[in-house]
Amino acid sequence: IRYLSKRRQERIQLIGDLLHREGFDLALLQEVWSEQDYSDLKAKLGSCYPFSHYFRSGVIGSGLCVFSRFPILDTLLYQYSLNGYPYMLQHGDWFCGKSVGLVILKISGILFNVYVTHLHAEYCREKDAYLPHRLVQAWELAQFIRHTSKAADVVLLGGDLNMHPEDVGIRLLRGWTGLRDAFAEATHFEGCEDGCTLIPKNCFTVKAELLPFPLGIRIDYILYKASSSFTVTCEELRTTTGTAPGRDIPFSDHEAVMATLLIRRQGRAVGAAPSTDEPALAEVVTEARTEVSVGLRAARQQRYSKGRMAVRALRLLLLQPTAALGALAGLGAQQPFPKLSFSLLAFLAVGILLLATALHLFHTMEVKKLQGTEEQMGMALRALRE
Amino acid sequence: IRYLSKRRQERIQLIGDLLHREGFDLALLQEVWSEQDYSDLKAKLGSCYPFSHYFRSGVIGSGLCVFSRFPILDTLLYQYSLNGYPYMLQHGDWFCGKSVGLVILKISGILFNVYVTHLHAEYCREKDAYLPHRLVQAWELAQFIRHTSKAADVVLLGGDLNMHPEDVGIRLLRGWTGLRDAFAEATHFEGCEDGCTLIPKNCFTVKAELLPFPLGIRIDYILYKASSSFTVTCEELRTTTGTAPGRDIPFSDHEAVMATLLIRRQGRAVGAAPSTDEPALAEVVTEARTEVSVGLRAARQQRYSKGRMAVRALRLLLLQPTAALGALAGLGAQQPFPKLSFSLLAFLAVGILLLATALHLFHTMEVKKLQGTEEQMGMALRALRE
Repeated sequence: IRYLSKRRQERIQLIGDLLHREGFDLALLQEVWSEQDYSDLKAKLGSCYPFSHYFRSGVIGSGLCVFSRFPILDTLLYQYSLNGYPYMLQHGDWFCGKSVGLVILKISGILFNVYVTHLHAEYCREKDAYLPHRLVQAWELAQFIRHTSKAADVVLLGGDLNMHPEDVGIRLLRGWTGLRDAFAEATHFEGCEDGCTLIPKNCFTVKAELLPFPLGIRIDYILYKASSSFTVTCEELRTTTGTAPGRDIPFSDHEAVMATLLIRRQGRAVGAAPSTDEPALAEVVTEARTEVSVGLRAARQQRYSKGRMAVRALRLLLLQPTAALGALAGLGAQQPFPKLSFSLLAFLAVGILLLATALHLFHTMEVKKLQGTEEQMGMALRALRE
Repeated sequence: IRYLSKRRQERIQLIGDLLHREGFDLALLQEVWSEQDYSDLKAKLGSCYPFSHYFRSGVIGSGLCVFSRFPILDTLLYQYSLNGYPYMLQHGDWFCGKSVGLVILKISGILFNVYVTHLHAEYCREKDAYLPHRLVQAWELAQFIRHTSKAADVVLLGGDLNMHPEDVGIRLLRGWTGLRDAFAEATHFEGCEDGCTLIPKNCFTVKAELLPFPLGIRIDYILYKASSSFTVTCEELRTTTGTAPGRDIPFSDHEAVMATLLIRRQGRAVGAAPSTDEPALAEVVTEARTEVSVGLRAARQQRYSKGRMAVRALRLLLLQPTAALGALAGLGAQQPFPKLSFSLLAFLAVGILLLATALHLFHTMEVKKLQGTEEQMGMALRALRE
């Protein structure tokens, strides 16, 4: 983030150097909040990554961009319908308009659907108020991938999912899309222990948050799957390990994940993908749906309390002219009419009325979205059971 | 709209009767703003349309719902990234969270992707301030259909597009997706002249808006296309014609569009779809892009002026303590310190500051979205030219 992030330009330069040196086929970046940084990278990497795309969204931007050695044929952006609260300024997620970006590439005649995303952060694991929103995002991500990837030979998803490998959201995403985790499947692995991407050793991470996890946590992923005529395997997976080689700072607060994937055309198309374990998947969807329901109850409560606040402010406001008339009519003749405090009170009432109404509308939208997701998950469950 | 629409319940009942009597395979409704109305229709139509879905979105709701004789396999909602302005309360579009809903059906082994949508209204054709937003919506609709329909045998789109048949948005949508207009292709037609769906004869339409169009306008559509292994033809197209049979009121302010489509499996799959006229398509995309650029300039101007207003309010606010200190220090000793007007001014400054900041953020998002669409259209143009 411009002006806020420490040694930002230096790190963008380090990231550019790394991308240049490694010469990947494809690089997916998140949290590139400054479009200037994207332009700088684009200028620097033009020779080795002639194709790139920056996804614009929200107030600040989605932060998502892609650099590619191969032509980008098309792009599409899907903005998640829920993404935290605009009044949680200290968490800022709402302002980024968190999204999933799709780029379509053709490499050696193979059609790739590549998704890059960044889900809502987890600020407190014990009492994660954003879990329902993140689950709605994971569900929308899974649905978006399912519906847009039907013509693709290979599907890749990379990004900061802000979920631990065993969390319900990641199980939902993997189960519902059939995507596989490159870390779990890699033949060779090199990097932070357990594939962690947020480690205490990194000087930009918040140490207190990682106290229960001395090795760090794994929240950044590369996932993949192939259509029935192809196979994908992960030959090698690597992560960066804290500081950049020969420097005193790391590239980013998260460690980069780098995968070497082997894609093979199958002699004959296999009829159907290996059938997923449907009872297990139904269990995951049920678990996710329960969490969404919890969020729905909370959102309904918020909608109600904000509505009540608006009504009270309105009543206070309506009381003013009555009281003023009373005072003028001589009821308060003993004391002078307190004009100043009266007008202050009226302004306060107007302010509260506007704020409470805006929040009431916001939570009405939240309720609708959570309700819609709960219903969709219910539909998925019925389909699974049949 | 509850409490606002005239004879609402009676008309919902008439619509239910019509749907029941006609026994369609599929009905796509728009502007069903009240979920209660949807529930009433659902209860009434359970026997002939056992499957249905209501798309939830925005503050009021998307207003979109689907009734089907065949099981709905899956659904997905895509909310348009631009949809008017929240402060244009009299136009209300922003609050509906205008979207496109997708339902997936299988009928006799044929996979249908059915899209239902409602684009931003046109309030003034001569000076249509919402044209860039509607074009962004038409583009996102086209992109969403392209990316999600690749596995479908047949694609159907129905809805209130708020565009005349020759408007750039509809040409863009048709050109970019390959969808065909049922009205233009129908073997038999029965209904309002020229297929109009907003006619002066309908007692709920605003007569003044239709003055330049004595026959009315056609802004509601059924569009379709088939994959290479199928063909679709429109056997018959009908519209309602003002008042419901035997009643003094029409079903709605728009006339309903009813199509009988014939879908045939092709003996052998044709290699590629009939190639579209690429230079003509490039021309349409260029025309649309120019309109989006006009919108982008206006949005930038708005963002700038709202930012300036916020800065001025902040300056006014900072002036207050200075002036107050000055007054207390005796500079204004002649006159009593005007506490009341000072506090009123401070409140006013805070109010303007908050409002201008919110609007500045809103227009920042608008700029990003218009810019993103302009860029995407540019990418499409390059692809077309190559």
